[in-house]
Order: sequence, then structure tokens, then C-alpha cells
Amino acid sequence: MSIMKQQCVSDLENERKNCSFDKEELTNIVDGGVEKTQFRRRLEEYFLRDPQFLDSIGPDYMSHEDRYANELRKACHMIHKFSENEEINQVIGRPDGVRSIMGLGFLGALTRDGNPLQLHLGMFIPTLIGQGTPEQQERWLGRAVLGEIIGTYAQTEMGHGTFLRGLETTATYDPSTQEFILHTPTITATKWWPGGLGKTANYAVVMAQLFTKGHCYGPHPFLVQLRDEKTHQSLPGLTVGEIGPRLGMNTSDNGFLRFDHFRIPRTNMLMKHSQVLEDGTYVKPLSSKLAYGTMVYVRVGICFYSCHLLQKAVTIATRYSAVRHQSEMLPGMPEPQILDYQTQQYKVLPQIATVFALLFAARRVGDTFIEATTSMNKGNLAMLPELHAISCGLKALSSTDSTSGIDICRLSCGGHGYLASSSFPRLYTLCTATMTYEGENTVLWLQVARYLIKSYQAAKRGEVVGPSVAYLVGKNTTEIRADLSDAGLLGACRKSVCAIVAEVESRLQHLCSKGQDYHHAWNNMSVFLVKCAQVHTRYYVCEKYVQAIENLKLSDGLRTILRNLCRLYVVNHIIVHQGDFLRCGALTASDMKALEEEMGDLLAALRPQAVSIVDAFDLDDFILDSVLGSKDGNVYQRLYDEALKSPLNQKDVPDAYYKYLRPLMKANL
Amino acid sequence: MSIMKQQCVSDLENERKNCSFDKEELTNIVDGGVEKTQFRRRLEEYFLRDPQFLDSIGPDYMSHEDRYANELRKACHMIHKFSENEEINQVIGRPDGVRSIMGLGFLGALTRDGNPLQLHLGMFIPTLIGQGTPEQQERWLGRAVLGEIIGTYAQTEMGHGTFLRGLETTATYDPSTQEFILHTPTITATKWWPGGLGKTANYAVVMAQLFTKGHCYGPHPFLVQLRDEKTHQSLPGLTVGEIGPRLGMNTSDNGFLRFDHFRIPRTNMLMKHSQVLEDGTYVKPLSSKLAYGTMVYVRVGICFYSCHLLQKAVTIATRYSAVRHQSEMLPGMPEPQILDYQTQQYKVLPQIATVFALLFAARRVGDTFIEATTSMNKGNLAMLPELHAISCGLKALSSTDSTSGIDICRLSCGGHGYLASSSFPRLYTLCTATMTYEGENTVLWLQVARYLIKSYQAAKRGEVVGPSVAYLVGKNTTEIRADLSDAGLLGACRKSVCAIVAEVESRLQHLCSKGQDYHHAWNNMSVFLVKCAQVHTRYYVCEKYVQAIENLKLSDGLRTILRNLCRLYVVNHIIVHQGDFLRCGALTASDMKALEEEMGDLLAALRPQAVSIVDAFDLDDFILDSVLGSKDGNVYQRLYDEALKSPLNQKDVPDAYYKYLRPLMKANL
Repeated sequence: MSIMKQQCVSDLENERKNCSFDKEELTNIVDGGVEKTQFRRRLEEYFLRDPQFLDSIGPDYMSHEDRYANELRKACHMIHKFSENEEINQVIGRPDGVRSIMGLGFLGALTRDGNPLQLHLGMFIPTLIGQGTPEQQERWLGRAVLGEIIGTYAQTEMGHGTFLRGLETTATYDPSTQEFILHTPTITATKWWPGGLGKTANYAVVMAQLFTKGHCYGPHPFLVQLRDEKTHQSLPGLTVGEIGPRLGMNTSDNGFLRFDHFRIPRTNMLMKHSQVLEDGTYVKPLSSKLAYGTMVYVRVGICFYSCHLLQKAVTIATRYSAVRHQSEMLPGMPEPQILDYQTQQYKVLPQIATVFALLFAARRVGDTFIEATTSMNKGNLAMLPELHAISCGLKALSSTDSTSGIDICRLSCGGHGYLASSSFPRLYTLCTATMTYEGENTVLWLQVARYLIKSYQAAKRGEVVGPSVAYLVGKNTTEIRADLSDAGLLGACRKSVCAIVAEVESRLQHLCSKGQDYHHAWNNMSVFLVKCAQVHTRYYVCEKYVQAIENLKLSDGLRTILRNLCRLYVVNHIIVHQGDFLRCGALTASDMKALEEEMGDLLAALRPQAVSIVDAFDLDDFILDSVLGSKDGNVYQRLYDEALKSPLNQKDVPDAYYKYLRPLMKANL
Repeated sequence: MSIMKQQCVSDLENERKNCSFDKEELTNIVDGGVEKTQFRRRLEEYFLRDPQFLDSIGPDYMSHEDRYANELRKACHMIHKFSENEEINQVIGRPDGVRSIMGLGFLGALTRDGNPLQLHLGMFIPTLIGQGTPEQQERWLGRAVLGEIIGTYAQTEMGHGTFLRGLETTATYDPSTQEFILHTPTITATKWWPGGLGKTANYAVVMAQLFTKGHCYGPHPFLVQLRDEKTHQSLPGLTVGEIGPRLGMNTSDNGFLRFDHFRIPRTNMLMKHSQVLEDGTYVKPLSSKLAYGTMVYVRVGICFYSCHLLQKAVTIATRYSAVRHQSEMLPGMPEPQILDYQTQQYKVLPQIATVFALLFAARRVGDTFIEATTSMNKGNLAMLPELHAISCGLKALSSTDSTSGIDICRLSCGGHGYLASSSFPRLYTLCTATMTYEGENTVLWLQVARYLIKSYQAAKRGEVVGPSVAYLVGKNTTEIRADLSDAGLLGACRKSVCAIVAEVESRLQHLCSKGQDYHHAWNNMSVFLVKCAQVHTRYYVCEKYVQAIENLKLSDGLRTILRNLCRLYVVNHIIVHQGDFLRCGALTASDMKALEEEMGDLLAALRPQAVSIVDAFDLDDFILDSVLGSKDGNVYQRLYDEALKSPLNQKDVPDAYYKYLRPLMKANL
């Protein structure tokens, strides 16, 4: 066995000898700066070396109930450790401090399959800050931060996800007692999905249709106590529980909640923006767009999160591809490392390229968000629609590409990628959920499309449109044929997006001119409208990728690597979607052939650096949590040792044999 | 709540009123004939109404160990019921009888997440039949069929999957005792993955490198006893156990096995084809291609299996899409059924079209297999290479398309598709495994490519090639531009495949002419060689789809439906891969626009029939096992009732509260 260990280990050592760039420089870029790398490493040291975050046996061996208890244990310990750490306390004190701590990817590795306190930290506390009055914050915020009360955010209902106005839960004001009466009128109105709601939270922000003086004013947030603070028993007048097992996130304690004419004080409505006065008079908010900011923030967070999951997956797949030997390339020769196969390179390397694409694009949207917030605070809301559109598009693109990237990485590891001990099952199941929550992707794409078509029509009328869509009308469409430089390919992307948007818009108009009303015509074009949104967002990502690398200060060695990755991303995008470029004449068949040949060259050029690049993601073995992906490459021994831990392997003959197998075998003797 | 139930139910009733064809006629086509429908229904009645196949609580709530015990219970009961049923006994008596029974899709629903006896029935028994001598069958086959001994099939090793010649386990003949010595020389030689091996099987067919008289003769099958028949204890000299939890198939008891100079009698080598005589003389088989037949058979089985999983997924998604109402299509109007959204139609309807595509193609390959077997028995092996290639391609295509189709269906159901109670998690995890086992897909695509390129080169030299590849050289490439009829589109497909194969082959030659040896050149073109294999196989499926519908006797109503589905499949394939058609000039930009418009029309035409078509799959609620997909459409009540069964919901306050949450809350008081 030791010979094999040596081979695996020396395979990775040999890979690392090829490194042609400064890994630490790349790590700093991934983190966003030297200080951020250092901060992350200090916190990793503080959390990851704490034995209380170890599991006695893997969660996948446990019952649903035990899994929940085990992750709750670690989640509570995490909050303890937050409060004991000086540096964290300083960060949490800042606006959005809780979120920036929660945004640290490695914390997700502590509670492996979902944290029952995630929504307490990530939604409940931020909502108190964002929507509560100073008095309300005084009353609840401090207690929430200390963990004296645990909250969640209950918006989604069994029959109502994306369409906020469709919520059925009502909050009807009764001026005689100065209370709101919360009620769940139908089964589809049952609150369904909120994390931590099942058994953990004793408070919740509940979104409900506000009725006062006989009018409905739409969904508003209410702070509702769910359970007794002393006994944790659920309060009379409501029914609360958990919604059962899921593809993943099985320990995030997703729950349901029903109200039967449940009364709360008037002062529990979160009244920073809208108010209901004692007599029931409704006071509306200054702007209905103020909620946009939070949504953008959450979506950018999802981009970073899904990208972090992809980072893990591609680290595991790359290292295992360097360790695994299979088949023959040359007859009679030893089995090569599978990373030497072009088909394997094509599975793994584009995912590395995607990590940087998503990272740079999400950072760019994050920067735009900060600019927009500054403008907003000065009363200028002009940037919001564009920011909304691009954050929707990037959330949809990041979640989709990360999920499919993780799946490709898993499949690239053959059968072993299917084992829980590889970590791929968890990465996939966590990541695919991001395609649905916080705005289902198809719905988001159609919102992007609406902004695109509106902007296109406005621009055609000569109006000024947002900077991200200005290219839709202009000289791009008539540009002479592009060369195959980065600038040339970005030009080809622009030309192709313009052609697609123009054709779809004209077909939309054509349907209207044939007598369809705009809404039906829109629906009848919606498959292609989604496509408009996708190609526009992909172009945004490609452009920001090229710009990011141009603008970064880089040593020559690293610049070559990042340029090759960026080039691979753009070239592969064009090859996969060649039809979009050929159809409008942005590129020709011979261009495509040249790009395909270049892609082969890029794969070959990046292959020797692959292990070093994923090393620079600097993901601790504890975070990767994978027998296939550990830094030392001792894959097969870990695979075997991990299997031996199975409770079924603690006995040679399983109990089930005596109950079921022996009677079958004997019955027939 | 009853109002909501009525609405859901009446939604489906209204859908069914639209039915424009004879459902029973379609059911018979799906089953493959009236008799097969009746046979299936008799067996479903016999199995599905048996309360012993019910679970006390859902397997997802159980620990890994309990899940295994629960499915073993049902698997043993299934074998009991096999032996008690006259009709099944008759079928099992026939050649391949066991497999044809195991091929009944609904049996998979009895043991939900993998059957620990699957490989006993599906591989161990058939291998005894296919590779054992009459004496060996006499000794073991009857006992195996009765369940007195339980076997598995141990080929894959920890470090060796696809590449059979790479197996490391050795079987060295010792003429002095007339025994084989089985040995596991390294950790990568550990047998790893076989279903039922962990704790269930007491026998196995083990593939090992045969050494005799100092020579290695490659991998051969050996029948090995693993556990004592009386005590079920594992035998000295071997180590056996289970490999731990997985993405899915958690109850198929996948195991590992290591030998330490473990001795078995010479007569335990399965000697139907090759033999080792008492003195150690090796007698080689008549043909090395005889094993091909079994592989083809298994692959065609996987096509049917993955297609069956897709049938379930699309049934659930279609029904739920008719029941679920969301958002606004027209401002101020009630929320429409989501199946009215074109984007939703585009998620669901192409999957229905795919079910028939895969079904007809797999049947066609199955028929070719029977022809080939007949020829083979007459000593004619000429059909084998072509059959091998097309079965590889279809396995890869079916597993990929079914898996992605299931995922699209799940995502089309929003968050609820993520719940175990929807059944989508299980369908996805079971189906994605088919992309890896029995030939990893990329490896299979490259085998298809090898056959394609070889045939193309032979045809260019004027040699006769197999009927499935004859079109690669000939008039197709110079055909005048096609119209958009079915025949025209198939012609465009041919033209595009020819262009792709010709270009890739010429680039391959070009690399060789630049001095690369053929093996390196092959590797450097392999991403595009995979593409050749994919477009060729897709064309095969399209062609067989069109032909199947032409050849079936159908009533007019049903013919319209199936033609629309087939047309949707072909048109959508062309739209998605438009680049392949535009690049070689097989179709133009204006053709593409026309096809896109036609696709919108096809979606609209099929929408009213969607629920009726999936009804005709005739999948019992027990088989679907989904709160979202049940026949009566009472989705929300089932969703709620299912959640209430969670063990966590049996207590208001969970035990974990006292241990972890209360200390946290109090610590800060």
C-alpha cells in the first residue's frame, strides 16, 4: 500500500514543481487583497482547528433527527465562538457586519449540510436592521445578536414563491385592541421553506398582506413570536413544524407555519418604511424601490457562494485527475494521469476559468452596488433598475454554471465522485438549490429580458439607457468583421447579442401587429427572451473578465495564467454557442475552426499549471472534506479508511441478516 | 382547504377533458403491445397492493443502517413473491427470464433507493448462465435462483473501472493443490463498488488476472464463496465490507473486497469459454468477442431504465405544472396554470418527446441485438462492431438526456422539487449513476468515435461499411439544400454529421502529417471526436424516431400527437445545436428562424394534450411516489400530510433544544 501512497503523493509533488507563478499572489487576488487573505487565515485557524466541529460519525450515516441535532450543536458552538472573538465582534459591529462574516465561505464547512441558524444570522438580523425602527431595534436586535432569541424570515408560502403579491397570509389590523390578526386562510397560504423555522427559531419576521380600514396594502413584515422563551413550546394559535427531508440542506431545519387568527401587538409591524397608526391609518413608504438594495445584496452573495462551491469541486477534481491513472494512451505504455487526456482537461480546466469569471463579475456588481447605494442615499435612484437587472442575470448565470460545473467535476471523477466521502454529492445538492431560492432563475431571466427589451426600445427612440445596455444600439451592429483578439471576440459577442435582441424584439412586435396583446406575445416569445437575457449576461461576464485582468497589477507569470484562463472562458463560450455567432455573421466557419484549434492549445498550455492554480484557492482539507481532493493526494488510503468508519462495518454480520436474509436462505434449504 | 383540493383536482379533470386521442392505444405502444400492458398490470396488482412493500417511515428519515435493513426486508420479500407466482416462474424459466423480470420498471419502486439483491438477480445469475459450464450451473444455478445462496459480480476495483485490462487482482493457479490463489496486491486492487457485496452476498463472481504456468492470460471470472453459509461470517483470508454512503443508491449495499492469498478450487473458474486444465494448461476461448453480447444487452437495459426514470419525472412535472398557479400573465387577472407559460412548456414537453425518442431507439437496438445474436449463433460476427458502437452511443445519450431531463423537470417544480417527497431527488440520483456505471460515458463516446472514424476512412477507400454509418460518405454531403420537412431535416442532420466527421478526421490527419503519432493526435482531437460520436448518435435517434412513427399502425388522433412530439424533438435538437447546421450550410439563418417559430407552435399544440400523454404512461401513484405527481392532483394536502410524518414533528420541542439551544439562549440571558 505504501508504494501506491508514494505514487499518488509524488504525482502531486511533480505537478507542483511545474508551477510557473507565485501562488500567494494568486491567493491574494482570489481573496481580494493581502489583508483579506490574512484575516481569512486567522479565522480559519480559530474555527477549523477546534475539535468541537468534528463529527463523531459522518452525517450521512445518521437519522434525519440526529443529523439535525448534530448540526444544531455545531451552529450553537459557532455563535459562542463569534461572541468570544475580538476581531469578529469588531466586524459584526459594523453595518452588514453579520453578513460579511456569514459570507466567509469556510464557515459553510462547519455545518456540512445546512446551518439551522443561517437565516437567523443572514436574514432575521439584517431585516431587523433594515426594516425595524430604532425602538424596535432597541427591543430585539441586541438579544438576537447575542442568541437570546433566534429568528427566521418567513415569506415563501406553499403555493407562492416568486410572486410576492400572490402571498395569502393576512395581517388584519384591529384598532379596538391595537393588534394585528395573522391568519392562514388556505392550505396554500401555509408558510413553507424558511430555514430554522421547523424546530429552532422562536421568533420570525413574517411577510403578510396588510389589511387596515378595509383596504389591502400588500405584503409587509411583522415580527412574530412563535415559541415560548422559557419552554420553547409553540404558542397557541399557530402550528409550526419541519417540512421533511430534501435533496440536500437536510439540517437547515426548513419549516412550515400556519396561523389561526393569531394576534400580535401593532408595534410588532416593522415600521421603518411604512406604518400603521393606532387608529389604523396607513402611512406609505417614501419609495417602493428601497427594498431593491437588500435583494441585490443577497443575489451578489449567492454568486460568491455558488462560486465558492465550484472552487471546492474543481480543486477536488483537478487533484484527483492528477493522481488517478487509467487506460492507455499509447499501446503497452503505463496508464497515464487522466489529466493528460484532453477530454479530462476539457471537463476540469473550463471550470477553473469559470471560477475567476464569476468572481470578477460578482465583485464588479458588488462595486456597482456600493456606488448605487451612495447615489441612493443622495436620493438618486437612477442606477437601481440596471443594478437590479444585472444582479438578477448574474445570480441566474452563476448558480447555473456553478451547478453544472460541479456536476461535470463529479462525473469527471468516475464512480468515486458519487461517494459521499468525495464531497461532490453535498456540493451539488447545496449548489443546485441556489438556482431556485431567492428568485427562481427563469423568472430572473425574464426580468432581465424585460429590462433589455425596454432599454433596446428606448435606445432606438434615441433615449439614454444604462451603461450595461448602451451597446445594444449603435455602431456595433454594423461593425466590420472582427479579428480574433480579445477585443475582436468581445466585439463579436456584442454583435451577436445585438442581432439576437433585435430579432426577438422584431418578432415580438410582429406578433403584436398580428393582433396579439403584448402580454400574450411576450409569453409566446419567452423561450427566446430568456435567451436574450442569457447572452447579454454572458457578454457582461466576458467583458468584466477581460477588463479585470487588464486592470489588475500582476507579475508576468501570473498574468499569463489568468490571460489563458480568461481566453479559454471566452473561446469556449463561443465554441459552445457557435450558432449565435454564425447566424448573424459575427464569426465565420473558418473563425470557428481557428478557435477550436486555439482551445486545444489553451488546454495544453494550462494543464501543467492546473494543480498549482487550485492550490492557490487555498482551501484547507477540512473545508474540502473530500477523500479525493486532499492536499497530499493520498486518495486511495483515505477512501478505504473512510469506508471502514461505516457503522455497518463495525460488525461482520449485520443485524438485518438474522431478520431477513437467513429466513430467505433457509426457507429454501 | 377543501376549496383548494377541488381546484387542484378540477384542474387535472379539465386537462383530461381535452384529450384528443385514445390513451389505452398509447399505453400499449409504450409497453410494446397489448399483451405486455396486460402482463405488467397483472404483476403490478400482485406487487404494488402488497402492504409489506410499504415503509413505516420514509427511508430518508432513517439511519444508513436502518435504511439498508428496510430495503433488504423488501428485497427478500420480493424474491419470496417471485417464487410464489406461477406466471413469473414460467418467465424465469426462459433464457434471460430473470433479466426480463428485473427489467420491469415498476419493481424499482419497491426498493426505493437501490435493491441489495439487484446484482444477484441481474448479474450473478446471468453470468452463471452465460459463463458457467453445465456442471457448474448444475451446482450453483438452482440454489441461486431459489435464494439459498446470494451472489454479486465483482469486477471494478478501487483504481480500475473502465479499463478491464488494468485490473490488478490476481488468480494464480497452483497445480500442486489444483487451486487458484486469489490475491489483492495493492490498495488500488481492492474490489470496490459491486452492489450487494458489502453485507448481503455470500458468493461472488470475481474477475481476476489469470496466471498459470508463469503466463498472464488476462481477466477471467471465478466463482468465490465469501461468507459461511450457516453463520454468514466472512471467510478467513478475505476482507469484505461496505463502501459508505452515496449520492443515491444508498441501499444497494455497494461493497469492497480484498484477498490475502485466498484459495479456491480449480473448478470454481467459470469455464464455459476458457479453461485451465488440471496441469495448468490454458485453453483459450473460440472468440474473444463472445462477451460483447452481454455488454450490449446490459447497455440497452440501461437505456430503458433511464428512460423509465425520465417518464416518472415528466409525469410528475407535467401534472404539477397543470395544478400550480403562479404570477400574472395579464395584469390583474388570476394566476394562470404554470403550464400556460411557454418557458414551462419548453421545460416539460421536450422531455415527453425525449421519452419516446429513447424508447423507440432502444427498441430498435434491441431488435438489432436479436438479429445479431441469431447471426452470431450461425458463426457470423460481422454485425457485432456496429452493434457495439450504437449500443455504446445510445447508452451514453440516454443516460445523459434522461438525467438532464429529470433535473429540468425538478427545477420546473420550483422549491418543492427539492423535497424528497416530490421523488425528484431519488430520480436524479438514481439516473445520474447510469452516466458512469457499465461504461463511463466519455469512454463510450470515444469508442463510438473510433468506430466512426474507422468506418469513414474505410468508406473513403471504397470499402463496404455498416448500415448505420454508410451515410458518412456518399451523396449526402453534396445534396442540394434541404427543405424543412421531416425528410429534409433528417437530410440536414446527415449533412451536418458528415461535415463534422470529415473536418475532424482531416484535422486528425493534419496533426499526424505534422509529425504527431496517431495516438497523440487522437488525444489532441478527442474533445471533437466526442462531438462526432454525439451528433452521429443523435442522428440515429432522430431517424429511428421518424421511422418508428411511420411504421406504427396508429389511429389518426394518436398519429398527430406522436408526429408533433417527434417533430418537437427534431426541431428542438436543431435549434439547440444550430451551429452544427449553420457552419456547414445544411440550414440557413432564415431556416432557423422558421424552425424557432414552428417550435413555438408545436409547444402550443401539444400543451392541451400534455397531461393526457403522461397519463398514458400508466404509472401508478405507488410507482411515482410523489406528492406533486399523484393522479388526483391533490398536491398541497399531500405535501402537508407528508411533512407531518417527519419524526421531528412527533414532538413540539425537539430533544436537541435542551442540549444545545437552551444553553445558548440562557448563556446570554
